[in-house]
Amino acid sequence: MPVPTIDWKGDAETGVAEIVDQTLLPEAFKIVEIRTVEEMADAIKGLRVRGAPAIGIAGALGAVLGMQGVKDAGFDEFFAKLTDVTNHLASARPTAVNLFWALERMRRIARDNEGKPTGQMKQILLDEALKIRDEDKRSCRDIGRHGAQFIKDGDTVLTHCNAGGLATADYGTALAVIFRAHEDGKRISVYADETRPLLQGARLTTWEMKTAGIDVTLICDNMAGYVMKQGRINLVVVGADRIAANGDAANKIGTYSVAVLAKEHGVPFYVAAPSSTFDLSMTSGDEIPIEERDGREISHSFGRRIAPDGVKIYNPAFDVTPAEYISAVITERGVIKPVNEENIRSLLPNDKTR
Amino acid sequence: MPVPTIDWKGDAETGVAEIVDQTLLPEAFKIVEIRTVEEMADAIKGLRVRGAPAIGIAGALGAVLGMQGVKDAGFDEFFAKLTDVTNHLASARPTAVNLFWALERMRRIARDNEGKPTGQMKQILLDEALKIRDEDKRSCRDIGRHGAQFIKDGDTVLTHCNAGGLATADYGTALAVIFRAHEDGKRISVYADETRPLLQGARLTTWEMKTAGIDVTLICDNMAGYVMKQGRINLVVVGADRIAANGDAANKIGTYSVAVLAKEHGVPFYVAAPSSTFDLSMTSGDEIPIEERDGREISHSFGRRIAPDGVKIYNPAFDVTPAEYISAVITERGVIKPVNEENIRSLLPNDKTR
Repeated sequence: MPVPTIDWKGDAETGVAEIVDQTLLPEAFKIVEIRTVEEMADAIKGLRVRGAPAIGIAGALGAVLGMQGVKDAGFDEFFAKLTDVTNHLASARPTAVNLFWALERMRRIARDNEGKPTGQMKQILLDEALKIRDEDKRSCRDIGRHGAQFIKDGDTVLTHCNAGGLATADYGTALAVIFRAHEDGKRISVYADETRPLLQGARLTTWEMKTAGIDVTLICDNMAGYVMKQGRINLVVVGADRIAANGDAANKIGTYSVAVLAKEHGVPFYVAAPSSTFDLSMTSGDEIPIEERDGREISHSFGRRIAPDGVKIYNPAFDVTPAEYISAVITERGVIKPVNEENIRSLLPNDKTR
Repeated sequence: MPVPTIDWKGDAETGVAEIVDQTLLPEAFKIVEIRTVEEMADAIKGLRVRGAPAIGIAGALGAVLGMQGVKDAGFDEFFAKLTDVTNHLASARPTAVNLFWALERMRRIARDNEGKPTGQMKQILLDEALKIRDEDKRSCRDIGRHGAQFIKDGDTVLTHCNAGGLATADYGTALAVIFRAHEDGKRISVYADETRPLLQGARLTTWEMKTAGIDVTLICDNMAGYVMKQGRINLVVVGADRIAANGDAANKIGTYSVAVLAKEHGVPFYVAAPSSTFDLSMTSGDEIPIEERDGREISHSFGRRIAPDGVKIYNPAFDVTPAEYISAVITERGVIKPVNEENIRSLLPNDKTR
């Protein structure tokens, strides 16, 4: 069920990015134009575009937008501006590494083409951004193909947050595994954690499942343990925002709790993510920066105040699941199982971007 | 910090119950009059009065209200009407046993006074209801006294839902332990799970802590695992709605997940509840009926629809934590530790009401 999460309209000089505004779902499916790098950074910060692979693509297209005003610049001037632009975009969110990975690819392609005229450089940047998007589309399908083996006919899958088409170019990571199993004709059911505070599970995952005709049941995050205890769940599949060299995986807050519950109930726990999610510069998950967001996301999230004025709120947006809780990591290059540094390094390409 | 959750105004013949309408907190602290048994059943069903001990008291006072219209009845007629009234109240919520326990006490006191004139019977019922309330006040303080030993100076306590003054006559069960440790001069901090879907933690527990001047931090339910992993939590204390003969304890949905997380992190997990919460007719928690509530509590709770129309929702209001996850049960009669049937039976009185 391809969702066109992010696209480009027009040429490199004057074109615009188009994103599905995910803050409006499920009440409205609206595609909005993003015309400047500032608008793109704000869209990432405000979660209008979200999901680790999707914000990588958004960052790359944001870099294209940020360079549109540059005319007939020498390479040093061009690259200095590109550095400003990518720094601005990189400051939008700290945890998902795909954003930094995509921005670094944009800088590298610029360096590799030093000396070309400004107009051509801009086209090269747009081509690279669209290449990142197209690679992600292929990655998603390959993740689905590699992961579907873990879902048997009749299985019920629990997922947390949204690692679907909306979180990627168009097919998802964790949800790609579910989409593919469904397309293969397996009869499957899904439980979606609502995923407080911003309810990506309630708003986005249920919407994607319903649109694809896959049986889905919404639960609150705190019900995951009980449904596992009842024997309703055969496996868990989630996405990831950054995976350290040892396999520790950062993902949406609450993922760690789900992993502990899965272990307690003997339920396999899978992480699905493209190889751009690995950050081999980090030896363990302890080094992954965890974004803390405004407490008002919790106390005021849906138009009604739900906590007393002035109460202290802790709002980490992510947590880290240690590798020992993860049954396998499903990537576009294949499956990492058991999850350890040796298996990770042998599957991943040894290039400078990770 | 005594909160007058529920009270009676006037005489047995024409008086009314008064409750703090908990659905309005924390935005408004409003005491409302409850004038009929139907209004009381609706108030229990709609969670205007909630918390296992509090709905016991509410049920008893509801029975008084239900008998006000009866004039010069013979015992059989009086008792048949009382049976109708208590059946109506008992149907309001199925999981917390304190409601049935209190209603059974009301029926027993009526039987014990067979032959008395109707007016006197009504007074006897009111006296019994107020006795249940006053016993609960003492129970809460005794629970606090027995439980405070488990909290050391400097500790941080995690709690789930609201087992505070609002859930009892006025001082709480789980929160009584915290109030008492605080009154003893211990410097303590509290993390309150918001407790989806109806946010009793966010709305009520933070309000009670703040009112008492106790340091409190609000988190989403799915953050409990992460804060435990960070080493922020020294112990967990929660209430209970029904405890089986083997010590399995039903409590607000999500409690079981917290118990599993506590075990994984070596954090002690305490249940605080009056002895009226035990149901020795149930050999294990598997027999405890679990209330399922309207899915709209999840999909529409913040005044904005947060899930696609027509999506399936599973909304169990409680779960059961097996005894092996519970470090101790703190009652008004003392502490049950380890939690097993022998220790439970030796602490509880062997009377017909449980």
